[in-house]
Amino acid sequence: MTEQIRVAIAGYGNLGRGVEAALAQNSDMRLVGVFSRRDPDSVTLLDSNVPVYAMADIEQYQGAVDVMILCGGSKTDLPEQGPHLAQFFNTVDSFDTHAKVNEHYDALDKSAKKSGNIALLSVGWDPGLFSLNRLFGETILPKGETYTFWGKGLSQGHSDAVRRVAGVKKGVQYTLPSEDAIGRVRSGEQPELTTREKHVRECFIVLEKSADAEAVRNTIKTMPDYFEPYNTTVNFIDEATFNAEHSAMPHGGFVIRSGTTGTQSKQTIEYSLALGSNPEFTASVLVAYTRAIYKLARSGETGARTVFDIAPGLLSPKSASQLRKDLL
Amino acid sequence: MTEQIRVAIAGYGNLGRGVEAALAQNSDMRLVGVFSRRDPDSVTLLDSNVPVYAMADIEQYQGAVDVMILCGGSKTDLPEQGPHLAQFFNTVDSFDTHAKVNEHYDALDKSAKKSGNIALLSVGWDPGLFSLNRLFGETILPKGETYTFWGKGLSQGHSDAVRRVAGVKKGVQYTLPSEDAIGRVRSGEQPELTTREKHVRECFIVLEKSADAEAVRNTIKTMPDYFEPYNTTVNFIDEATFNAEHSAMPHGGFVIRSGTTGTQSKQTIEYSLALGSNPEFTASVLVAYTRAIYKLARSGETGARTVFDIAPGLLSPKSASQLRKDLL
Repeated sequence: MTEQIRVAIAGYGNLGRGVEAALAQNSDMRLVGVFSRRDPDSVTLLDSNVPVYAMADIEQYQGAVDVMILCGGSKTDLPEQGPHLAQFFNTVDSFDTHAKVNEHYDALDKSAKKSGNIALLSVGWDPGLFSLNRLFGETILPKGETYTFWGKGLSQGHSDAVRRVAGVKKGVQYTLPSEDAIGRVRSGEQPELTTREKHVRECFIVLEKSADAEAVRNTIKTMPDYFEPYNTTVNFIDEATFNAEHSAMPHGGFVIRSGTTGTQSKQTIEYSLALGSNPEFTASVLVAYTRAIYKLARSGETGARTVFDIAPGLLSPKSASQLRKDLL
Repeated sequence: MTEQIRVAIAGYGNLGRGVEAALAQNSDMRLVGVFSRRDPDSVTLLDSNVPVYAMADIEQYQGAVDVMILCGGSKTDLPEQGPHLAQFFNTVDSFDTHAKVNEHYDALDKSAKKSGNIALLSVGWDPGLFSLNRLFGETILPKGETYTFWGKGLSQGHSDAVRRVAGVKKGVQYTLPSEDAIGRVRSGEQPELTTREKHVRECFIVLEKSADAEAVRNTIKTMPDYFEPYNTTVNFIDEATFNAEHSAMPHGGFVIRSGTTGTQSKQTIEYSLALGSNPEFTASVLVAYTRAIYKLARSGETGARTVFDIAPGLLSPKSASQLRKDLL
């Protein structure tokens, strides 16, 4: 590829920073700017040579950006920004409000078709790579069951709940797949499992000086909805350990398809992610798909797309012939 | 879908039988015939209502078949049959001679473009699903290493070698991923590993009455090329156990991408298959991709394709909107 793909970022939080880092690993792409609602002078990028612009001026950069990666939140940012920005740019987003995905698709499709752009929605690992594996699972093994497990992953909402307990100085909560449940699924048993049965919760707590450990443990384990229905473990650690070992944002999970073929052959497809940094990995998926969207836009395609619509070869900088030689 | 996709099978061995069984699990497809080089009267299908035809007459059925699944071998059958049959049919094959894949692609592409058909090559799990996961791995985590492990799987060539040892009545050999090697890869260490270091070999042997077990074990473990370079285990079992537990054709394996993002976050993507029947699973992949080829052919596309060129949504009988609702 002779010319670099010109990419910009709209919204610079954990995900935006991850996109900046991921772009630096792909030599056929170049970050041409970051757009923020904050005062541009107050935004510090990893690479200080990249300009930061005010979000309000974004329309002016229409001719200078091949693909705009939207790094806002799914709740309020993306439903507005997506259709708005698809008027001016090819876009890629990580919209993850599952119940509203077709609504978001329709709004993007309308806007992008009108402007002649492409808008790829719901990219990342779930939705995204996990969605693809659910699709491959049910199409290849139509007689079977699909299981999605999440974790080990930091849960923001549950960590907040833990930190509100009296006597807790610092705390985090991780959701983990239940080893027992995964074992049953892998065996081909095809059990019926609720989300609760599939996951356990683990807390790491730094106590206030005067706090009663057993009281804290009990308050957490019996907290309705959050912890009471789950198998919950509460660990007490010192503050130095907490700072050293519990400041990252790990996540991951499993998609397992358990099926049968022929008369009784058990077949299992398992896809799993163990992520040291959730936002950095999500960003890496967004960036690989940015390359695909660039190619589709160049070939004249328009409208909304999901990962289901993208031929995997488009993700690679290699030629089709090279891909066959190297990877098939 | 109102009309069923009319599918035929060329070549009826283990894979062809697997395709017949897989088609029976997909109600939008119908097996309209099997073509064999054997005397059609000597070929017994799972479903006796499906006609068996002579391979020599295959051209006559051009208008009656939407997609022809080629179930011959990669060594001599597919290189000839593929380009020949792509003159008359849309085709799907499982060509797995990696070194000749671009040669096979070119021959199919030329034939299929001339006739206006589509020819999908090298479908199955390796090549096929494993290839896709190698592609996703290196595009999403460009800074990293990809590891492919095979097994637990029955190795035909090594089983033949074991059975040639004096004193062996019955024998099979399984190749297994080395637990130690997988552990090192999962840890994010990114070790350099040869195929030999990644795999161990396990044999199950029924001895002739008078045979010396230790001599047999020693002959196997020291066999040059086949076993000597590997960590090999030899187990002796009785014939009833052998017949009960070692008559299936299990296989599987792992594709692991270990990479880093940002400054030092370790990220691991792992894809694994545990297959009770290798030919039945490969057949199930062929059948899912048959649906995609049917759709592409209907939309007017022609020429050769690989799994890299196929948008995953095409594998499903569901509409794009339904897929987003159910799986994204």
